[in-house]
This record gives sequence, structure tokens and C-alpha cells, in this order.
Amino acid sequence: MRAAILAVGSELLSVDRLDTNSLHLTELLERHGVELVRKVVVGDDEVAIAGEIARLAAEAELLVVGGGLGPTADDVTREACARALGLPLRDDPEAWGAIERRFAALARVPSANNRRQAQVVAGAALLANPWGTAPGQRIDTPRGAIFLLPGVPFELAGMAAAELEPWLAARSAGHGRERRTLKVAMRPESEVDEAIAPLYEQFGRRWITVLSGAGEIRVRLWAEGASAERRSRLAAMEARARELLGEAVFGTGDATTLEEVVAEGLLRLGASIATAESCTGGLVAERLTRVPGSSRYFPGGVVTYSNAEKTALLGVPEALIAEQGAVSEPVARAMAEGARLRFSSTLGLGVTGIAGPDGGSPEKPVGTVHLALAAADRPTTHRVVRLPGDRSRIRWLASQAALELLRRSLRSLPGAAP
Amino acid sequence: MRAAILAVGSELLSVDRLDTNSLHLTELLERHGVELVRKVVVGDDEVAIAGEIARLAAEAELLVVGGGLGPTADDVTREACARALGLPLRDDPEAWGAIERRFAALARVPSANNRRQAQVVAGAALLANPWGTAPGQRIDTPRGAIFLLPGVPFELAGMAAAELEPWLAARSAGHGRERRTLKVAMRPESEVDEAIAPLYEQFGRRWITVLSGAGEIRVRLWAEGASAERRSRLAAMEARARELLGEAVFGTGDATTLEEVVAEGLLRLGASIATAESCTGGLVAERLTRVPGSSRYFPGGVVTYSNAEKTALLGVPEALIAEQGAVSEPVARAMAEGARLRFSSTLGLGVTGIAGPDGGSPEKPVGTVHLALAAADRPTTHRVVRLPGDRSRIRWLASQAALELLRRSLRSLPGAAP
Repeated sequence: MRAAILAVGSELLSVDRLDTNSLHLTELLERHGVELVRKVVVGDDEVAIAGEIARLAAEAELLVVGGGLGPTADDVTREACARALGLPLRDDPEAWGAIERRFAALARVPSANNRRQAQVVAGAALLANPWGTAPGQRIDTPRGAIFLLPGVPFELAGMAAAELEPWLAARSAGHGRERRTLKVAMRPESEVDEAIAPLYEQFGRRWITVLSGAGEIRVRLWAEGASAERRSRLAAMEARARELLGEAVFGTGDATTLEEVVAEGLLRLGASIATAESCTGGLVAERLTRVPGSSRYFPGGVVTYSNAEKTALLGVPEALIAEQGAVSEPVARAMAEGARLRFSSTLGLGVTGIAGPDGGSPEKPVGTVHLALAAADRPTTHRVVRLPGDRSRIRWLASQAALELLRRSLRSLPGAAP
Repeated sequence: MRAAILAVGSELLSVDRLDTNSLHLTELLERHGVELVRKVVVGDDEVAIAGEIARLAAEAELLVVGGGLGPTADDVTREACARALGLPLRDDPEAWGAIERRFAALARVPSANNRRQAQVVAGAALLANPWGTAPGQRIDTPRGAIFLLPGVPFELAGMAAAELEPWLAARSAGHGRERRTLKVAMRPESEVDEAIAPLYEQFGRRWITVLSGAGEIRVRLWAEGASAERRSRLAAMEARARELLGEAVFGTGDATTLEEVVAEGLLRLGASIATAESCTGGLVAERLTRVPGSSRYFPGGVVTYSNAEKTALLGVPEALIAEQGAVSEPVARAMAEGARLRFSSTLGLGVTGIAGPDGGSPEKPVGTVHLALAAADRPTTHRVVRLPGDRSRIRWLASQAALELLRRSLRSLPGAAP
């Protein structure tokens, strides 16, 4: 089955707004093995919308239209769809009843404009919208269907799940496409690509995508077919990928973050972490505390931007800073150890570097960052990295490198999961 | 003049990618008074691309196509455009020379595939691409033109500025649309809207848009016409808006951030600030240090997540926390004063609150945040806010409220600009 998405709304043609609903719809389509062939954005213009509906419905079996179902004069998707199909609009008493009830519940009275929201293309199935006043519609066509959905993102998402998904499921009969994502931090894309080369051979290159982000690589595995079949295929692919990538894999799922994984590890071990940051300016602490319940493992941290504060707050010897420079291995180590002692935590993390744009030198160019992790009963570990990009990117990558150092260390602490 | 944008690339129909080039192009079009009537995304399919080019070129005077100009087999925009217009492709020696020179400079030899990048639609003007190997093309049509540009965002942006903008400027003769944005922090949209009501009356509602973001309102002013005319109109609108909004306006321009404005203020006064954060977990420090050169006004800060650390690091009396709770006015004040003393800074900022999801109570619900600002020679100021949303939103809004408190205080310090 082929699908097209039409987003309606003049604001989507402005400098401020993108049609993001289509990403959500694309995911749904993909899950049911439907191929998306076109995305179109059009303004609130009845003739233009009608033209697009006629054309896209001829090109694809499924057309999903989002937006233009509101009560105001510029909401003309209903009229446009009727025009495109050469069908009349009719008043739907059920739709009107639902609108009246919704207003009554809010102790308000619908306006004459709301009447238009109860108009339905002749022959269309009405789709209830429990999230707003605009009901949706499904018009069956000889080859498939046209769905009219509201444009408000959470309303569209709710109705797509309630109405579009079952429709697709009935047609795909469990046949579809599914993905699983493994995440890897702070490794070059080429290295990941090389490591998983046997996966390409075993399963076929087209079922594996490597997506590169800021300090994160996503290895995306795909499978098609009936539900049980694709699950077992994905499981086999994941197992092989984990074998090939080893402990570089920090998590599964697109939304999994390094700080969440670190939080889990700290909680499992009953360990706590304190931070001492320079170039990251608090970003590592901020990321650690994004996770709900972070007070269970994070007593606190310091941002020591000046050298004097590195000495006063963390006990980094003045002479060490004078001799080695604030951005150096011994200072990073002393910061990590100072943070651990200061906050009486299991672990201490130190980050010192040059985020730029100024402050670089031939020996220590912008992007040089020293990281150290201190623990009670073992030597402090250290890493130095040279990070590319502008100030904001360097700071982000430094926080990634710091959390990744922490994650790896947690795996080797006593009591860690294998 | 009417315009359409066609984005070419199968990846733009996937779950991971949106066509963001169109936002950049929209801004350019708008500046020259061109109305955007359609945005279309299509995959790497010659027939489908040709169909869209033919249709969109008939509908709008200007068509900008981005993507599909690379050397690989799936880059078929050139062929599709020739097909849509019924014109042959010809080899362009100039384009080929440029590609050869580019490869020679990198000590590489172009492949047979690169030959395709030197093919030009008959009659088209070649557009040099100093940023990549894919040259662009401009095909003049009876009513306007079709621009073929590469899809890589920085190449497209470069070529749009070098080739599309002058073409538009020649046609608009300085006539266009221009905007100016005033930014306001931590005020309800309805309040801003009410305050600027006289502006609507004086200049007409359609020239003013109020855009609401997370803890920031943008008041966008528009003017159309010849360059000098619209500038003077915008100046008059801005002056009136500033009169109506007073010191609530923190800056001009969409990209201006509260931390940048605060940084300017601190530098102008030669003042420094230290932070003591609880619920924001380092976000205020992180935002203050996003600004290059922040070491000139930011010696450092602490994140005291635990009560013990509020006492140990900031000298907040244990008894005060026990009596009033960690989220309270006196503790926020003591944190701000503690930070100022600890870092020997001009100012100290304290933030303590409940970001959730847990930790709320009927008296202090999730979203309750106390802010305090300490200075040497004046009483510490305090504000309490009740912020809506989830953990991440509450933390962001708390950092906005803290920076806004700081900004307002800077305006009243000795030596501040009026």
C-alpha cells in the first residue's frame, strides 16, 4: 500500500513552523508496511486543498489529511474534500450532539461557527475526537481511504492511534515493518560501521542503518514480515550486533539517554556521584539531574570556572594549576578527587577543558578536554579527548564523554552487572 | 510573485528526517515579498519528481528544488527536470572543469558518476557551488524560473544567498516584507496581548503576531513595502511596543537569549554572579556559561541537591532547613547569600524548588520554586513562582525566572543603563 500525507494550514508555510505531524504518521505507516510516497503542505485555500486531495488520492491508496477542521472561516478542509470528490456535505446530528455535549461540559454554548464542524462529506464515517471539538472523517475510496484528522499534534496523535492504526492493522494483517535501535556513545561512525560489517553480510545491508548524531551513533535494525517472524529476526540481529559491538552499546531504543543508563547503574550499585566541572559549566550536573529521583545518587556538584575556586572548593593545589595549567590531566584528577571528598560520594567526576572560541593554544587547542573519575578504593581513571565543533557542540560532546566514562566505570565496580 | 518549494530525497520521507531547508528558503522568499504556496517532499523517483516539477512550475512563478543533484544513481533531479520540461540534458564543459579542479585540489580523481553532475538542462544557467561538487542550475521559464539547488543544508543556504537572493532582489526592486521581533520573558501571553492592544489599533492587527514559547513571548512586528518605508514603519512600531511593554522587553531578534542579555548587563557593570542551585540542577550555571567569555563574570556555582550540602557548601543553617523546609523563601535567600560569599562575587543567585514528578505537597506543590538574588550593598530580593508542566519544563521555566530576576536587578544596580 502507498500513502501520502497532506498538511493543511497557512502557518505551516511560514518561517516559524514545520509540519511535524508527518513524522508521527510516518512511524505508524511504516509499522504496517505502508510506503510513504509524498508529503505536501498547503495553505488554508479551498481550491488548492481540493486540488491536492484529488491528485494525492489518485496517486496513493491512503491519504491522510491533517488540519483545517476547526470552526473558523479559514478551516476549509471539509469543503475542499467534498469538492475534490464531487460529493455534497451533510449535517451530521451525531457530530453536532458530541459538540454540544463537549461545550455543555465546559459550561459553554457552541457558536454558529461550530455548526460547520458537524458537517460531514456524504458517505464518510465520522471519527470521534475525545481530545477536541473537531471530529475526524474517513472517506472510503475504491482503492483505499482518505482520513481527515485535526492538525493539533496531540489530537492528531490520539486519533491516528484510535482510528488510523486499527484500519491499517486490519489491512496489513500483522504484516509490517519494525525497527530496533541500539545506541553507542562517543565512537566514530566509521568504527561502528566496521565493527558491524559481519551483520551486513549475515542479514543484508538494507536492513541496517547507521545514524550519526552529536556524540551518539544509532544502529537501527529493521525487519519485515509477520509479527512473530520479524520479532525473532530482530532478536537475532540484536544479539549479533551486541556481540560485535560489545560494551560500546549503552542502550536500546531511540529515546534512551546516557544519563538514564548511568542513573540505573548508580541505583543498582547503590553508588553516588558528585561533579566538578569547568568547561561544561554545569551541563553534566544538569544532565544527571534530568532523571527523576536523581537525588538518590547525586548529592551535588560544583562549577569552578575560575582557578581560585578550583583551589578553594575542590582543594586543587595552586601550584599544580600554575605548573600544569587548569586544563591538564593532574588538575582533572584533583578535581574528581576533590568533588568526591567534598560531597562524601562514592564517585567523583572532574571535567576541565577549552570550549572556545578563545583560550586555545598550539599545545592545547580549543576542544581539548580532560576527564577524570575518582573512586574510594581504586586509582582515579583519566581520559583526554579532542572534540570538534563550536562552543556549544564541544560542551555537549564533553558531557557525553564524561557520562560515557562514568558508565564504563560503573560496569567494572564491585557488584556491577556483568 | 508566488513560489513553491520541492524537497527531493527518500530520506525526507523517513521517520528520522524533516525538510528543514524550506524554513531557510521561506525566510528569503518572505524578505522579497514572495508568497509561498506549496511545500512538497518527494522521494528519489524520476517520474514522481518530474510530475511535481511540471505541476508546481505551472502553479507558481518561482520553483525552488532542493536535493537530488549528487553523483549517485539515486540522484535524478537533473533528469527529472529535463523530462518535466521536455528538454534534453547536455554536458557542460564549464561544470565538468569545475568538478575536475575541485577533485584535483583534494588530490583525487572524479569518477564516471561525477560526469552526471556536469549535465545541465538545455538552456539552463549553471550556478557555481563553491561548497560542494554539485553545481546548481537556473532554468528560466516564461513566467519566472526554476532553481535546482543541492540538498545539503549549508550548500543550499550558501547558494540561495549567492544565486537566489540576487535574482529575487532584481525582481522585487527593494519591495518586500520585513519583521522585527521583541522578546519578553516569564509573562503570560494574555498579559502581553493586552498590553499591546493600542499597537493593534494604531498599526493594524495583521502586522503584529504574538508567539508563545516556553517562558518567552515573541512579539513580531511586520512591515511591507519599499525598504526605507518599511524600516521607518518598523521603527515606529518598535518604539510604541517598547513604550507599552516597558522593561518587560528583554531583547530584539528571534535568536536573542536571556543569558546573552544578562551577560551584557554584567559586563557593562563589571559585576560578577555566582549560582546556588537545587531543582535546576546546574541549568542556570550552564546557561550563563553558554555565552563565550563567561569567565569574565562567572567565577562558578554549586549544585546542592542534598540538604547537608546546602549547609556545608553555602552555610545555610541546618535549623532553617529543618524549620522552613529546603524549598522556602529563607533557604533561597540563604543560598543566594551563601553563593555570593563563597565565590566572592558581586551577586549571588539562589534557586530552590520542586521539579517533580515526586516531592510535592498540598502546601508546596510540584512547580513551586523560590528564587533569591543577593548583592553586597542592598537587601536580598526574593520571588516565588508556581510553574506548570513536567520536570523538564519546570526546570527550564525556573532557569528563565532566575535569569529574568537577575536581568531586572541589573537594571537597578548603580551604574546600570537607564
